[in-house]
Amino acid sequence: MKKPASQKNKVSRNAHGLSRKGKSIRTKPTVTKNRLVYLFGQGEADGDGGMKALLGGKGANLAEMTRIGLPVPPGFTITTEVCTHYYANNRSYPEDLDRQVDAGIRKIEKIMGLRFGDDASFPLLVSVRSGARDSMPGMMDTILNLGLNDRTVAALARSTGNECFAWDCYRRFIQMYGEVIMGVQKLPGDDHEPFEQIIHELKGERYGNDIPDNKLAAADSSELVSRFKQLVKRRSGKEFPEDPGVQLRGAIGAVFGSWMNDRAVVYRRKYHIPHEWGTAVSVQAMVFGNTGENSGSGVAFTRNPASGDKELYGEFLINAQGEDVVAGVSTPEPVGRLRDHLPAAHKELQRIRDLLEGHFHDVQDFEFTIQEGKLFMLQTRNGKRTALAALRFSMDMVREGLIDRKTAILRNPADQIDQLLAPVFDAVTVAKAQILAAGLPAGPGAASGRIYLNAERAVEAAAKGEPVMLVRMETSPEDLRGMIAAQGILTARGGVSSHAALVARQMGKVCVCGVSTLHVDYRNKMIRIGEKSMHEGDFLSIDGTAGTVYAGKLPTMSSEIVAGLIHGDADARKTRKFRDFKRLMDWCSEFTKLEVRTNADTPEQTRRALAFGARGVGLCRTEHMFFEGDRINAMREMILADNELDRRRALAKLLPYQRKDFAGIFRELKGLPATIRLLDPPLHEFLPNDLSGQEELSRRIGVSVSAIARRVRELHEFNPMLGHRGCRLGITYPEITEMQAYAVFESALEVAQTGLKVRPEIMVPLVGDRREFNLQAEIIHSVASEVLGKKKRSIAYTVGTMIEVPRAALMAGSIAETAQFFSFGTNDLTQTTLGISRDDMGSFATAYTENEIFARNPFATLDQDGVGLLMKMAVSAGRETNPDLKIGICGEHGGDPASITFCHRLGINYVSCSPYRVPVARLAAAQAALAD
Amino acid sequence: MKKPASQKNKVSRNAHGLSRKGKSIRTKPTVTKNRLVYLFGQGEADGDGGMKALLGGKGANLAEMTRIGLPVPPGFTITTEVCTHYYANNRSYPEDLDRQVDAGIRKIEKIMGLRFGDDASFPLLVSVRSGARDSMPGMMDTILNLGLNDRTVAALARSTGNECFAWDCYRRFIQMYGEVIMGVQKLPGDDHEPFEQIIHELKGERYGNDIPDNKLAAADSSELVSRFKQLVKRRSGKEFPEDPGVQLRGAIGAVFGSWMNDRAVVYRRKYHIPHEWGTAVSVQAMVFGNTGENSGSGVAFTRNPASGDKELYGEFLINAQGEDVVAGVSTPEPVGRLRDHLPAAHKELQRIRDLLEGHFHDVQDFEFTIQEGKLFMLQTRNGKRTALAALRFSMDMVREGLIDRKTAILRNPADQIDQLLAPVFDAVTVAKAQILAAGLPAGPGAASGRIYLNAERAVEAAAKGEPVMLVRMETSPEDLRGMIAAQGILTARGGVSSHAALVARQMGKVCVCGVSTLHVDYRNKMIRIGEKSMHEGDFLSIDGTAGTVYAGKLPTMSSEIVAGLIHGDADARKTRKFRDFKRLMDWCSEFTKLEVRTNADTPEQTRRALAFGARGVGLCRTEHMFFEGDRINAMREMILADNELDRRRALAKLLPYQRKDFAGIFRELKGLPATIRLLDPPLHEFLPNDLSGQEELSRRIGVSVSAIARRVRELHEFNPMLGHRGCRLGITYPEITEMQAYAVFESALEVAQTGLKVRPEIMVPLVGDRREFNLQAEIIHSVASEVLGKKKRSIAYTVGTMIEVPRAALMAGSIAETAQFFSFGTNDLTQTTLGISRDDMGSFATAYTENEIFARNPFATLDQDGVGLLMKMAVSAGRETNPDLKIGICGEHGGDPASITFCHRLGINYVSCSPYRVPVARLAAAQAALAD
Repeated sequence: MKKPASQKNKVSRNAHGLSRKGKSIRTKPTVTKNRLVYLFGQGEADGDGGMKALLGGKGANLAEMTRIGLPVPPGFTITTEVCTHYYANNRSYPEDLDRQVDAGIRKIEKIMGLRFGDDASFPLLVSVRSGARDSMPGMMDTILNLGLNDRTVAALARSTGNECFAWDCYRRFIQMYGEVIMGVQKLPGDDHEPFEQIIHELKGERYGNDIPDNKLAAADSSELVSRFKQLVKRRSGKEFPEDPGVQLRGAIGAVFGSWMNDRAVVYRRKYHIPHEWGTAVSVQAMVFGNTGENSGSGVAFTRNPASGDKELYGEFLINAQGEDVVAGVSTPEPVGRLRDHLPAAHKELQRIRDLLEGHFHDVQDFEFTIQEGKLFMLQTRNGKRTALAALRFSMDMVREGLIDRKTAILRNPADQIDQLLAPVFDAVTVAKAQILAAGLPAGPGAASGRIYLNAERAVEAAAKGEPVMLVRMETSPEDLRGMIAAQGILTARGGVSSHAALVARQMGKVCVCGVSTLHVDYRNKMIRIGEKSMHEGDFLSIDGTAGTVYAGKLPTMSSEIVAGLIHGDADARKTRKFRDFKRLMDWCSEFTKLEVRTNADTPEQTRRALAFGARGVGLCRTEHMFFEGDRINAMREMILADNELDRRRALAKLLPYQRKDFAGIFRELKGLPATIRLLDPPLHEFLPNDLSGQEELSRRIGVSVSAIARRVRELHEFNPMLGHRGCRLGITYPEITEMQAYAVFESALEVAQTGLKVRPEIMVPLVGDRREFNLQAEIIHSVASEVLGKKKRSIAYTVGTMIEVPRAALMAGSIAETAQFFSFGTNDLTQTTLGISRDDMGSFATAYTENEIFARNPFATLDQDGVGLLMKMAVSAGRETNPDLKIGICGEHGGDPASITFCHRLGINYVSCSPYRVPVARLAAAQAALAD
Repeated sequence: MKKPASQKNKVSRNAHGLSRKGKSIRTKPTVTKNRLVYLFGQGEADGDGGMKALLGGKGANLAEMTRIGLPVPPGFTITTEVCTHYYANNRSYPEDLDRQVDAGIRKIEKIMGLRFGDDASFPLLVSVRSGARDSMPGMMDTILNLGLNDRTVAALARSTGNECFAWDCYRRFIQMYGEVIMGVQKLPGDDHEPFEQIIHELKGERYGNDIPDNKLAAADSSELVSRFKQLVKRRSGKEFPEDPGVQLRGAIGAVFGSWMNDRAVVYRRKYHIPHEWGTAVSVQAMVFGNTGENSGSGVAFTRNPASGDKELYGEFLINAQGEDVVAGVSTPEPVGRLRDHLPAAHKELQRIRDLLEGHFHDVQDFEFTIQEGKLFMLQTRNGKRTALAALRFSMDMVREGLIDRKTAILRNPADQIDQLLAPVFDAVTVAKAQILAAGLPAGPGAASGRIYLNAERAVEAAAKGEPVMLVRMETSPEDLRGMIAAQGILTARGGVSSHAALVARQMGKVCVCGVSTLHVDYRNKMIRIGEKSMHEGDFLSIDGTAGTVYAGKLPTMSSEIVAGLIHGDADARKTRKFRDFKRLMDWCSEFTKLEVRTNADTPEQTRRALAFGARGVGLCRTEHMFFEGDRINAMREMILADNELDRRRALAKLLPYQRKDFAGIFRELKGLPATIRLLDPPLHEFLPNDLSGQEELSRRIGVSVSAIARRVRELHEFNPMLGHRGCRLGITYPEITEMQAYAVFESALEVAQTGLKVRPEIMVPLVGDRREFNLQAEIIHSVASEVLGKKKRSIAYTVGTMIEVPRAALMAGSIAETAQFFSFGTNDLTQTTLGISRDDMGSFATAYTENEIFARNPFATLDQDGVGLLMKMAVSAGRETNPDLKIGICGEHGGDPASITFCHRLGINYVSCSPYRVPVARLAAAQAALAD
């Protein structure tokens, strides 16, 4: 194929433009108020990379690449403001748009030395692409080869001497334009896409089998053009437009129209992109990857976005236009092989890679076209990456001097860093496995195990060394030992904050919950997922990051970071992943203002959290200690007692256990603070609900089954979340608070006597009035002075309260008169402020998301407007009363980056989260501090 | 008995002092800052009746009576500030107290012409009494005859020539002093009060049987004195003090000490009297009702405090001291009989009655002593009265010119006025009946009926004309028809705001709930209360005002007010009770600013409420309409539908019913506004939970039992209060909102076309964000414009929202952008703000009351600090956005006087309450306006 001299010259000039980089960058773009169209080309551009809001990501980066002298075909970008105008004015354009678009086309013509619609010589063809502020891949459409018609195609064929290429371009153009602008789509009666169906038929007629598209002859493409036009006429009732000007306006209109198509709306909802942003439209001179074997198209990353390795990563197709690479019609080749096909282009690609990273200081994801051996850049953007890649990129780039530590911290998305901690399935296995069902990804990671439907059998199986998958309709504290024993937890009911999910995250267990197609048949020890039935003992696998369920056993492996930090695996500590992670966390500590603590109920959990960098325990749920072994029976005796004396007797049995647990935690903490919450859950959670459980309990503790059943009935509550729990227990049964206080101070004393520092912070839950707090605090202080007084020792302890019902926030000023610290229990505070039970919102959550009532799940990310306002009032009133008031947050939000940023701004002292969220919180806290 | 001349003279002078009334009242008391003791006597007093805070009710009124010239023995009052000082300073007195007390005694001596401790002639004796700001009857102790000892008793005997009297006084004094000051009380081993035991023994020894105390001879009393002293010595280890000064100081100390005794603390807690108020102590010269047959003591009301009749009402004892009347040792005679015994004293009593009412302008409850035919006043205070008496007093006194209309309104306690509406048991029958159990008085009134344990059988029995007592462990909306059919409702579980209580009050049903000793055995159709078992069909009676339960049938009668207003009973309308009530309500309307509306779900309820004076419906709970007859099945079909089409089909069946109900309500209202709330409760409330119910439903609507059971399981919620209900239903199933909107506007149109005005106000429940509201409002407005547009009619309607979760209050500013009114749903707002489920608080309510965490039940009286703050924020933010925003309250608090006062102060436009609370609300609203 012979290239037209004029075009070739222009393009070469652009390619050489790199030498003018300095000048371009120094020239600030002149933005006039009524400028609707921003030009770029020949090393100069009206816009730049900072103008993503106005020009979209694509348009801004085309301008930026032009300015730094990269070989970018000239073009122009219509601003997002035009899109906004379009929707604000009943889908009409600003008055001056036509004129500015025409001027843009003339500018491209001038640079390229070609003419749009030229039917005598090589005509100017353009691409029309959408581009929003944030990239929305595949959400809106692209038109290539615009400007071709029955006359210009002939001119193209004549001027290039490549009839095959010209008709291939024309055929593609009609197909895209027909689909996108003229609405020729697959209808309910169609088996295939109608254009593809025609191609398929023609190949059958002429070749008898399915040859690749780029093997079609000119006459084939010409015939396809003719049939395509008939299809368009038949389906749309309109002739295919021959006038390139009409084609261009149609394409621009289609891009703006596509901003509000269903796909795009759903995508934006999912990724929290405001509809008001609008899209820009970029119109750019075509370059051609489909002129022959010296041409091609590709996409590439400057580094590997999966592993983070520093290698050019991507794929390309010879003799193809860009769409072919993405469409997957032919199988593209890895970009490394370009070296074999077109070594010069490969070398140019490497040079450009360095230029891109040197300029953007980040990994780029870019598109290129090679026309007759010459490489052109069509797009660049920051590359999406896995958490692992993000980590490696940031560390490598600091090492390479491309970015500083602060930037490195900001480059790691906080809400993804915990992906690095989870065990994973082998990607190859997963790709082949069939997804049985999907639920909520409640505990990230991957797990396989044998199905067990209750805690007892799960524990037994685990004791035999079996991997266990605990499957329940829902879980309750009674299932705790089963959950501990299990590799993974699968439930039919409950959201991301259900008991199952909460405990799973706390323990770093893999969990998928809310699988609506799951039915558990406890009696027959069977489960059914959709149509598939399985029995106890069968293998099941779940991916808690994706929320997917698989039949059978998929093998998993542990993360090197966990292996290194928690298991002290020396080999793991030597790995790149481990060292990078460690370094990132160390840097975080340099900048963080918020302290990060952990929610931990055992010495083991505490140890883990400290290994992840927690600076204390922010929430120790003492009730979890009552479920192990014999303790549950003593606890049950206490609940079944009908007088104080018997209650005290049962509590006396619990005291040594609790003391031992606290001592263990204090020892692990080595002087870091431990916030210990008094007994919180409603008592019915500790009693067996079913007859057989009651019979067994009766045998063990010698209380009649009917007495047990009566107590269970008595304890039944309509809304247990709002019932007899929290400090309401301690107020009705002060002896419980007393026992817990003895356990705290006696164990603290014991540990202090070994020479370690101890810092207990005792926390009263569910307080709504200072009188409630004061009653409990009195008991605690009096036990403290008794225990410590006896040994004449002083231990620095504090007594504070949860702020977890709205009234506590409203009364914070008076509560702070005696409370030494506040800890926001944002789970319950969100439930009560919104009047929504997180376990029961499944039935309306979808409607709420679809109607955009919740921008984000308020149980995952703090509702800053509502709950946040209460927190703000509480912080301000509390500090007004007591300027030294220590304030933390220990709800699930303590591990959520957006919520952590909010807490940082509120001036809260610490966040507390489950051990496996500690790295997330440390990273988010550092990022919040850096954002100041 | 011969009276000492000096005393006689003094007393006479006081009695004549009436003529100096004018002068005394004009003389303003001089209160110096360090005055600890306020004197009164001889027509002059340091204090007056307005100084109750400082002198206690008793002390202030002794001063006032003295000032207006009533025959009051002289004395002095030690202020409540001394009590406060006493407790603030480790139970010690202000320095100058002794001196001032001595001066007080000297003043009494001077007026009486007697000497304290005089062992030569008639000695001055005094009484020492406590007196808090509000009277606390029987809570603290009184000492009479103080000043007697072995020598003064002889002087008293000598000077009066009445040995019997003298020793009787001394015996009484030692007994009281011994009990109160020296702590000689009944011990665990004692069968009787130890002093009474001694009297009993002596009577046995000397008379062989139990003669009246006032028949004891001087020698008997003298022997008793001797034995009493031995008892005091034995029990207290101390000699009985002979020195009158020591006696006096001991008595004063005992009164102050008694302020903090258990009885007094419990009483103050019950009646919301602050502990900080303290008590005063009055020391007063003794006059003697026990000198012989011309003497006596009595208590009286200036009018009948039970019936309100204008008659002297009370009782007296001849030859007795005041304590004897109260103690009930002898049976006193009605005060009218005094005419027969001592006609002059009776005449004086009537004169004093007129003077008291003429001065205090209120009914007085007073104590008097007649000494040798001469009447003395010892105390007066405003008399406690029944609601009926309060009504009659206020009306009569306006007629008599004693008070004006405003005062009359303020004289009727708003929270008692509904006692007048309830049917009552005959007091005589009740007094004889045995109380089986006590529970919460949830629906005032009295009812008897045959026990039935489920709605179906209750309805059947009622259809046969049987009076029905519905007895349940708890009630749910499924029981509604049974509740309608029942005379009374009795439950084992649930508080004053449980479903049973709520519905009972709404319907004016008698209800006792939360009877913990009640067990319902549904299977065997039996109940057990404590030890007593009863079967279905047995009679049971409950008093919903007292919260008591009786076996068998106690007859009831309907209130004349209800008979007159609701049943249009002409005879009832002629009664005094009816006319007084009507007049009071009419006066209220003159002063009220707050509008009073009603919570009504049917035309019948609306009619009743309007008869009680409601100015519209403030809450129409549309779901209650779905329980009648066949509707429930259409509702259930709707819930069981698994697609929108089937749901719409079922809704179409409900539409005509709902339209008819709304039309009925609009017709009753004749242009008054009707606030109609969209469907609110969780759907599971409409489905049968038990197998037999599900089987029956399956037969009726042709859906399989397993499908019904599955749906019931699906709808199960952990905390239904915070689940899928309120506008969350309308957002998931917009077709429900649509149907309800059609029903509202089609019925409104229908009624409007008959020429009546219609004012629908449609209310969206459980909103927490303006987006929720807007979605629902959009549907409503669009249905309105369709329905009204078709007929080209305009109807003035508004669309507003409940504010019933804290977030709604926090977001009020933005919600008010589109909402045209707010209605505080304070039941749910209280539950969510406090994090307390009203149905589940039974288990800790007692501990909370005992520990004084709740000053008042927050579900009965608004928690002004917490919930009230949210309301204040919402009112202010809502009006900031929309100054014309109409704001109401429709929770149970809308019928509570204290809450109504708060709402008035907040500037709320209306309160809405159940029909039978409308008079309460009207009265409270008028009182709040008058308090401004």
